[in-house]
Amino acid sequence: MTSYPPVQPGGSLMIAWQVKGKNVLVVGGGEVAAGRILHALNADANVTVISPSPLNQEVAHRVSQGEVRHVNRKFNPDDLTGASEIIADGGEIDMVLTAIDDPKESVAIWHQCKELRIPVNVADVPEHCDFYFGSVYRDGPLQVMVSTNGNGPKMANLVKKRIQEALPEKTGAAINNVGLLRGQLRKIASTPEEGPKRMRWYAHPVHNYLSID
Amino acid sequence: MTSYPPVQPGGSLMIAWQVKGKNVLVVGGGEVAAGRILHALNADANVTVISPSPLNQEVAHRVSQGEVRHVNRKFNPDDLTGASEIIADGGEIDMVLTAIDDPKESVAIWHQCKELRIPVNVADVPEHCDFYFGSVYRDGPLQVMVSTNGNGPKMANLVKKRIQEALPEKTGAAINNVGLLRGQLRKIASTPEEGPKRMRWYAHPVHNYLSID
Repeated sequence: MTSYPPVQPGGSLMIAWQVKGKNVLVVGGGEVAAGRILHALNADANVTVISPSPLNQEVAHRVSQGEVRHVNRKFNPDDLTGASEIIADGGEIDMVLTAIDDPKESVAIWHQCKELRIPVNVADVPEHCDFYFGSVYRDGPLQVMVSTNGNGPKMANLVKKRIQEALPEKTGAAINNVGLLRGQLRKIASTPEEGPKRMRWYAHPVHNYLSID
Repeated sequence: MTSYPPVQPGGSLMIAWQVKGKNVLVVGGGEVAAGRILHALNADANVTVISPSPLNQEVAHRVSQGEVRHVNRKFNPDDLTGASEIIADGGEIDMVLTAIDDPKESVAIWHQCKELRIPVNVADVPEHCDFYFGSVYRDGPLQVMVSTNGNGPKMANLVKKRIQEALPEKTGAAINNVGLLRGQLRKIASTPEEGPKRMRWYAHPVHNYLSID
């Protein structure tokens, strides 16, 4: 009898969300907002932060560098519905990340996002989140996210550090090269029947690089 | 002058999506569908697979175990809008994962999902995906997802293997214990001022466990 991987309940659906060119609205301008903004920028989103000045220094720096658009006032519900200048260009808000100290307002934003079906993360209110963030290790095209499913960001950071130590330097560069190689091989050996041949060609250098046999 | 982490474009927004008790519809019943189903079950989703029999053996096994609901016919557009028996209980489809060999139908489902604002992954059609899957290492409450941002699942699997080898056994159990400890300490030392004390208390066993100083 064949056996199949057992279900291991209690986890999250770990996914790589695509926000390239999408409008991400960050509500709040403090330290948590700074982290959210960096996550979104690393994924090529158009980021707008809405918060009255003064902003956290990192956020202010990104605004001054033109990396992030800043709307210098408090959030109001019209901001999500097309009635405000935030989406004046005819676009729409594709994702909302709130990082404010006002639980009542946070919950109100959550409900509005749910009504509009906008994916939303409400910092510090886990029950009002479509998704959570984790600790992310990055090396070029490689991204590794560690989630402890609510058992503490400190643990996630420790695990991330272990992963960072364990992966060879330039793993990201190697992955880039494999990606290029795959593209080339796909042109040379493009039929499905040639797939296994392609796999053998590029598997060897990769195995050597990562010292796995 | 303070320096801030530089933006590293070209990545994804790595997130842990919450589907506990949510309705996830898998369109298709082959090998790719089997993988999607396991991801969703591991995150406590209510999974319905829609596909004419025969199903892939693993999918058929999960249906026979009652882990997954099976609608034994082809998908039709009404399935997403409340007119079909799939959401007869008054609920709604919270996420769609397609894994069929028909690119035209795949794209049609994508467009419908976008109109209805349902998050969707269309297997093998990266430009029609709100999100991608990666290679996931799991140890109890710990989940580690590896994404190469399109440079090949084989590389993601190799990196995952390295990570698996590098993390001490029972890391997941240790994270569980830390989570329990955090809960206890939160009750004992519950004011924000006592936060640093809590951190010191639980940081030591964790550091020892993971052999990091």
